[in-house]
Amino acid sequence: MSEAYPWQQPLGATPGPDGLTDFRVWAPDADSVALRHGRRDRSELEQVGYGIWEGRFEVPAGRDYRYVLSREEWKRERRLSDPCSRHQPQGLRGPSRVFDPGEHQWSDGEFQAAALADSILYELHVGTFTQEGTLDSACAELDRLRELGVTTVELMPLAEGPGVRGWGYDGVYISAAHHAYGGPAALQRFVEEAHARGIGVVLDVVYNHLGASGVRAMEAFGPYFTERYETFWGKAINFDDEYCDPVREWVLQSAEGWIRDFHIDGLRLDAIHAIFDQSATPIVAAIAERVHAANPEAVVIAESGLNDPRVIRPREVGGLGCDGQWADDFHHALRTLLTGERDGYYEEFGRVADLAKAYHRPFVHEGQYSTFRKRRFGAPAEDRPVEQFVVFSQNHDQVGNRAYGERLSAETRRLAAFCVLLSPFTPMLFMGEEYGEPAPFQFFTDHIDARIARATREGRRREFAAFKSFGEEIPDPQSPGTFEDSKLTGTVDSELAQLYRQLIQRRSELAGEVDTVEFDEDRRWLRLRRGAHEMICNFSPQEASVQSESSKVLLATHPVSLEGDRLSLPGLSGALLR
Amino acid sequence: MSEAYPWQQPLGATPGPDGLTDFRVWAPDADSVALRHGRRDRSELEQVGYGIWEGRFEVPAGRDYRYVLSREEWKRERRLSDPCSRHQPQGLRGPSRVFDPGEHQWSDGEFQAAALADSILYELHVGTFTQEGTLDSACAELDRLRELGVTTVELMPLAEGPGVRGWGYDGVYISAAHHAYGGPAALQRFVEEAHARGIGVVLDVVYNHLGASGVRAMEAFGPYFTERYETFWGKAINFDDEYCDPVREWVLQSAEGWIRDFHIDGLRLDAIHAIFDQSATPIVAAIAERVHAANPEAVVIAESGLNDPRVIRPREVGGLGCDGQWADDFHHALRTLLTGERDGYYEEFGRVADLAKAYHRPFVHEGQYSTFRKRRFGAPAEDRPVEQFVVFSQNHDQVGNRAYGERLSAETRRLAAFCVLLSPFTPMLFMGEEYGEPAPFQFFTDHIDARIARATREGRRREFAAFKSFGEEIPDPQSPGTFEDSKLTGTVDSELAQLYRQLIQRRSELAGEVDTVEFDEDRRWLRLRRGAHEMICNFSPQEASVQSESSKVLLATHPVSLEGDRLSLPGLSGALLR
Repeated sequence: MSEAYPWQQPLGATPGPDGLTDFRVWAPDADSVALRHGRRDRSELEQVGYGIWEGRFEVPAGRDYRYVLSREEWKRERRLSDPCSRHQPQGLRGPSRVFDPGEHQWSDGEFQAAALADSILYELHVGTFTQEGTLDSACAELDRLRELGVTTVELMPLAEGPGVRGWGYDGVYISAAHHAYGGPAALQRFVEEAHARGIGVVLDVVYNHLGASGVRAMEAFGPYFTERYETFWGKAINFDDEYCDPVREWVLQSAEGWIRDFHIDGLRLDAIHAIFDQSATPIVAAIAERVHAANPEAVVIAESGLNDPRVIRPREVGGLGCDGQWADDFHHALRTLLTGERDGYYEEFGRVADLAKAYHRPFVHEGQYSTFRKRRFGAPAEDRPVEQFVVFSQNHDQVGNRAYGERLSAETRRLAAFCVLLSPFTPMLFMGEEYGEPAPFQFFTDHIDARIARATREGRRREFAAFKSFGEEIPDPQSPGTFEDSKLTGTVDSELAQLYRQLIQRRSELAGEVDTVEFDEDRRWLRLRRGAHEMICNFSPQEASVQSESSKVLLATHPVSLEGDRLSLPGLSGALLR
Repeated sequence: MSEAYPWQQPLGATPGPDGLTDFRVWAPDADSVALRHGRRDRSELEQVGYGIWEGRFEVPAGRDYRYVLSREEWKRERRLSDPCSRHQPQGLRGPSRVFDPGEHQWSDGEFQAAALADSILYELHVGTFTQEGTLDSACAELDRLRELGVTTVELMPLAEGPGVRGWGYDGVYISAAHHAYGGPAALQRFVEEAHARGIGVVLDVVYNHLGASGVRAMEAFGPYFTERYETFWGKAINFDDEYCDPVREWVLQSAEGWIRDFHIDGLRLDAIHAIFDQSATPIVAAIAERVHAANPEAVVIAESGLNDPRVIRPREVGGLGCDGQWADDFHHALRTLLTGERDGYYEEFGRVADLAKAYHRPFVHEGQYSTFRKRRFGAPAEDRPVEQFVVFSQNHDQVGNRAYGERLSAETRRLAAFCVLLSPFTPMLFMGEEYGEPAPFQFFTDHIDARIARATREGRRREFAAFKSFGEEIPDPQSPGTFEDSKLTGTVDSELAQLYRQLIQRRSELAGEVDTVEFDEDRRWLRLRRGAHEMICNFSPQEASVQSESSKVLLATHPVSLEGDRLSLPGLSGALLR
């Protein structure tokens, strides 16, 4: 399609020369749209078709503005933030501010992001990563991460949402880096600093729903949501119903903008199983295409609860064209072996056989019946290269969505790291795990609507009532203390930190997929071979003696001994041999 | 997956030797399931896992039965027809009857169905095709259809639904050929007779919703529906929610059964855009696979309102694996030129350019904005062979879903037939059009629930209020007269009938796609070339003079004259030249 529709022009505020800025907004049912800027300045936008309004006004970068919409059926006009806002200096319900991404002088021309096959991802939450909780303060940690061997930082969502504390999955202004973290200019500085150290930056983006606090404001502009589908978290975004094109473009331009204007090296798409779209070009495929058009090296990593290899197949073979996806099954298979947990979706994991299977391709359910989902689930992913799967033993969900947000216990951390970092997949660490951070990562929010705040608090209490420790309350997500308690303390377990460094170094010597996997379900050991290397894991709490074909222990999580063809390992330990 | 789940065993009643029949039914929430058969006989079924109940009882073919379900929360047990019923001799709410498909001795071993590229489809509604309205009486027309050149009869849905009159899209028992048409044995006889004449049989099947009259009965068995999605006609069938597997299998075994036990040569899947399924193996792909496994020559033709070539791409390139799909855009482009209509979804058609485009591939919307759908729509289908598109100038919907069910007018019929039958796509006729049948095909129903009957009647009146002719009521769908008025009269326009025969004969000489299309939007002619053949159409009511590269008129809908390089055609006419 070479025709250009008005919504395909840049949406939002686009500053140009001479302090003039182009404003473009979609408001199909509005009778008029004006821009409110400065003390009393008001400028009328013009309808140019398909519900798109535009105008060029003397509103330079740095100036605050709001849209003023009127509609016959409204009693009075409404002043609203820009759905495409790139900066909300006073938060969700404050004015938007014109941001000129071109003001930043980039000096990262030499930077080359690591390919997925060479990547070690590091997920971090800006607000709790440092005491200050800002992008600028996070820069101070980049040297440490580089020395560790991290190639890519994955930032939890930055989109402006309610309040100043939160995980980021309640975002509303999907193109505005959160003011509490320093706003868009701070993000540019952070990426610049990361790139200067050879570290790439992936950004977590949420395109499956919007934070409830912003639904009404968005609906005042147009049908951003559809009733055709249901999502767990709220109204489904309108990707295939009437008037979906400007909504799709609002997402696509946001994705593109992060890559083009912030030099972000990839997007992590939150929960694409909650993105419903029957279009001939599904929005996830369109996002991947737009991101790759902006930077062919940029990656799109889906969080997919579908176990469907189509997500990460190229478009040419009917795929959605994502570069990678999170591999939750690998996590569940590993975690249940380490901890013995069997609640919720862990119920159908816990056999060494599951992890053995996951080491081949991490869809443990590739068409089998899932007792948790109460249906057959998934399809085989044999055709997909191993680096397309992102694996982890901890992440924000798996740590934070527990009653107390507690991390893996000290006894299990070493083997967990061993299994993830020496896997053939793309490993991801969760901030702090690399040195045994003792602070939890709890669920915290800062809802500004009393009703939503109450529902969140009570929902959390209900959800975790069964997991309550004696005498200890489930942390209140709205309490600033819950957020403060989740900040990294930096208390280092130096042996564990040393192990992470060794594992990351050794990882680079291993290549290709797993050749063979053997295991003993009763004695709970697993042995796998990758080329000349042998990995042996003991998931039992007791010492194990496992036959080995290798002659040398290269690395072990704990003291082990190789005598003849037998390796003795203590409980919950692993060794790499050759 | 080589594991077999209980629901993968044959569901329903499967008669075996010695008058013993296997009964298998899914009722996950039932406390007990019994079979009621004979006067007072009652046999208890046994739970074998996953909510599947089974039993082998002395209930030979021809015997009536019902399931008796009990559940603690119910006041009393419920007697219900079998969801997998193959015969409802007393209608929707009567007992099911054990049917043994093996009783029919097939003698169609020599029959070979035509490939789509060689097919001429003929859509018929059994109830109005003959005065008697049965499958047996329809057999008498098969010689006539063979002589005309029809290769494949497409039967409107046969599934048992409410009452004895209806189009078939309110079916509930998706595996039971309607008793009013003669039931399953009559269907076997019909297929046998068709095959004996070299005619294949395609069956229209509805897997996107069930008739409202059967929803409660089905829900008593289990979660056949899901709340995740909305369809226009009622609850969405549960293809991807919890407990979907037995529902999927209920559909898959039904599809398979038509092919295996009734020798049906293909299925036409109703409205797949209303089949929602996020599974790694979408149900439409699974149906196509199951049908092809039962008979590799059998075809699956989708009615798809998606303009998505994925529907008819092979699985290997990420398609759903259907063999063909209806091409509504071709119809709309053609009809609007013939009739000047611009209401509803016709609003965005009406240019000769649309038909010119449709002659290449019939997705007129292949990514462009649709004013009717209020969004961009579709994707190009360049890679799909032309025979995958089924085209028509009339069908049950396009005729019947008009206020009075009136067919194309006499003035437009000849050019309509010309455009369809000489197209490179697979043509489909609607019963009676081949001889200019004057009877309408109206919307008729026989709802047995007063509430549904009232809603249908009133809905129809409301929908067509604007189209009401002066003094003439919109036909009442529930009135038997509306059904009777829709029966073919057999009143033949012999010149038109002659034209159809000629067109079908000439069609076999044309091959391959359209090479070039030219047109004049103002003068409303269109000229296209297929190999050595030239087709010229005049959509204006006035005579036209069009340049031609050919030397000979092979066939024309009306008297035309070729003088030098100019062809003169009367209004609404077409000519094939060489």
